[in-house]
Amino acid sequence: MAKIVMKFGGTSVADLDRIRHVATLVKREVDAGNQVAVTVSAMAGETNKLVAWTRELSPLYDAREYDVVVASGEQVSAGLLAVALQTIGVNARSWMGWQLPVRTSAIHSSARIESIDSSELDRRLAEGETAVVAGFQGVAPDNRITTIGRGGGDTSAVAVAAALKADRCDIYTDVDGVYTTDPRIVAKAHRLEKVTYEEMLEMASLGAKVLQTRSVEIAMLHRVPVRVLSTFDPEAGGTLVCDEEDIVEKKSVTGIAYSRDEAKITLHKIPDRPGIAAAIFGPLADSGINVDMIVQNVSEDGRKTDLTFTVGRGELAAALKACEQAGAAIGYRDITSDANVAKVSVVGIGMRTHSGIAQTMFRTLSEKGINIQVISTSEIKVSVLISEEYVELAVRALHSAYELDAG
Amino acid sequence: MAKIVMKFGGTSVADLDRIRHVATLVKREVDAGNQVAVTVSAMAGETNKLVAWTRELSPLYDAREYDVVVASGEQVSAGLLAVALQTIGVNARSWMGWQLPVRTSAIHSSARIESIDSSELDRRLAEGETAVVAGFQGVAPDNRITTIGRGGGDTSAVAVAAALKADRCDIYTDVDGVYTTDPRIVAKAHRLEKVTYEEMLEMASLGAKVLQTRSVEIAMLHRVPVRVLSTFDPEAGGTLVCDEEDIVEKKSVTGIAYSRDEAKITLHKIPDRPGIAAAIFGPLADSGINVDMIVQNVSEDGRKTDLTFTVGRGELAAALKACEQAGAAIGYRDITSDANVAKVSVVGIGMRTHSGIAQTMFRTLSEKGINIQVISTSEIKVSVLISEEYVELAVRALHSAYELDAG
Repeated sequence: MAKIVMKFGGTSVADLDRIRHVATLVKREVDAGNQVAVTVSAMAGETNKLVAWTRELSPLYDAREYDVVVASGEQVSAGLLAVALQTIGVNARSWMGWQLPVRTSAIHSSARIESIDSSELDRRLAEGETAVVAGFQGVAPDNRITTIGRGGGDTSAVAVAAALKADRCDIYTDVDGVYTTDPRIVAKAHRLEKVTYEEMLEMASLGAKVLQTRSVEIAMLHRVPVRVLSTFDPEAGGTLVCDEEDIVEKKSVTGIAYSRDEAKITLHKIPDRPGIAAAIFGPLADSGINVDMIVQNVSEDGRKTDLTFTVGRGELAAALKACEQAGAAIGYRDITSDANVAKVSVVGIGMRTHSGIAQTMFRTLSEKGINIQVISTSEIKVSVLISEEYVELAVRALHSAYELDAG
Repeated sequence: MAKIVMKFGGTSVADLDRIRHVATLVKREVDAGNQVAVTVSAMAGETNKLVAWTRELSPLYDAREYDVVVASGEQVSAGLLAVALQTIGVNARSWMGWQLPVRTSAIHSSARIESIDSSELDRRLAEGETAVVAGFQGVAPDNRITTIGRGGGDTSAVAVAAALKADRCDIYTDVDGVYTTDPRIVAKAHRLEKVTYEEMLEMASLGAKVLQTRSVEIAMLHRVPVRVLSTFDPEAGGTLVCDEEDIVEKKSVTGIAYSRDEAKITLHKIPDRPGIAAAIFGPLADSGINVDMIVQNVSEDGRKTDLTFTVGRGELAAALKACEQAGAAIGYRDITSDANVAKVSVVGIGMRTHSGIAQTMFRTLSEKGINIQVISTSEIKVSVLISEEYVELAVRALHSAYELDAG
């Protein structure tokens, strides 16, 4: 017998038939003797409708009222799933965020979960009651409804699992797990049986959108094993996101991730003096722009150098504007930018102990004639910025080079 | 400056344009210097959709989860109206039933409001904030969401007005007030400027569905003046439901009400002995059947008599079954029933001081050749049961006889 949390997203509960199907998946776990808490998102399409209504009334809507309107979507799906469960003999009841409560910060529409009081929930699970928790919502210190931001459903589920000290959090979604890379690009990509929290974090932040970054952070912090599996084919096995110790055989590289949401800015001939980085990145931070990769050339004459960095593609215009406004303080000669770039990364916890990973990457890309524009590394990943047109070629070549191809 | 509660039903907030229109009506009261709390129903059609979903999942749904699902409708409209109000410069915020809280009984899907804590609301109204309260919902002693039954929106509004000790509760609806009778039957029916709580109660319970009976009861108990007026033509004037003392000129008859939801049952040749009424009506009460009019003939020989009573048409089959099951204890010779009957009533607080009201009714019906089957009277109304086919004729004739025709 285990205590498990099951999470179903919007497509999993998109209509009454799917809600009935979800109920059978839950019943199976209950019948197996498990204590089960389920978290649900709004029925697919409902949240978009509610957001559109709010925006149409006011483009500059009050986020507190936005939360009131939008949180109703999960209220409906939680209630309906509880009814569907009761119909097939599962003793279920729904819980709204304010009923547990799920306490969050007061940053409406993108609140952070601060604590979940799971004492009553725990008591009822022990008595055999199944809980259906409305995902995505909580309550602010002033007792008003909050939501934890679009797609916060994974985060809700993992946070509930952490509060309950659950043995496992099962994230049911429309894919059957985490892959070595995007199967749309590499036909030979294969599903990973297990992946560490750290690797998953790198993959998630690099655009492999299977799990939300924040949910992986919480899972890692509280050591909650998270299983990703398909609502429509739960037998397929899924991927377990877990501690490094739980993975016996560690390959040097676990997966190849990529992101097209990149843009590159180069400031030419800036003074090579202390404080120049602060002069550049201070104004960008003040504008709320996230800078990712940064590379500064060694200056040839000790006085002038070039500096290149990347930002999200949607933030390019704002970043250029901030740089131009700070132009006098920076003192660059010229500024150029390129939105046709992409980031490709190899990720693997095994990198810590295997050498030559980066070298294999550089050689492989070179053999394909792909120019590397920027390089950035962490303990468990190597990322390179390349021209966007080479993304598929690079990902396929690297997938083969690290012997990830299936079959 | 006054403290007022404004209530808008589902058709008044059916889409975003109508919500914007409602916002302008609210703003007008705020701009006039009033403290305003608004209660809203779900957008027309939403509640039906939510109810249908719940029923489709389970005809024998859990009323507690039904309430969770259905209450989401008012959550949406309250949030949207708050946004619409903010957009035009009104400092508004929404309140869910559990936030005030509106405490109700635990009878889910038809809970009774037991108390409303309006202290925080009152404080904020005094500070110039406008409140948008989700109608129709509350919270049970165990902190679960309740609804006060289909169409409980009027009741929510009047209860909030009573808690706030509001100067007035304005019920905005799709008619412009209370009429002397149904204008679809009598073209010369006219809107009443004022009507007493007592008269309104009789009219409401007799099928004039402008205000819900329970809301009038609460208004009468707490002496809250209620104004009924049209959302789409608020200038039309409306009808004020108020204390008898606030009405200077009292006519003998205020209006003519009717109800087609009637069925008649006659038990023939029952023993004329003590305890016989209990033997008949006990089993009916146990079956949850509401008996309305009752008439017992004087027995001719002191031993056997006939007894006739009416029930709601939808309860006829159940009532007959209950009588048949109690047949041995009652000892009737025969039982007959008629579902083609209707009740017509003349209502007026002035009846207390004017004589001859009933006589005028009987004479008028007699002149039209309409047979009276059962008669029932109260202090402020006279009701008769007639064959359903004569309803329109009777209502028109009585409307003229009591000089209610307009123009």
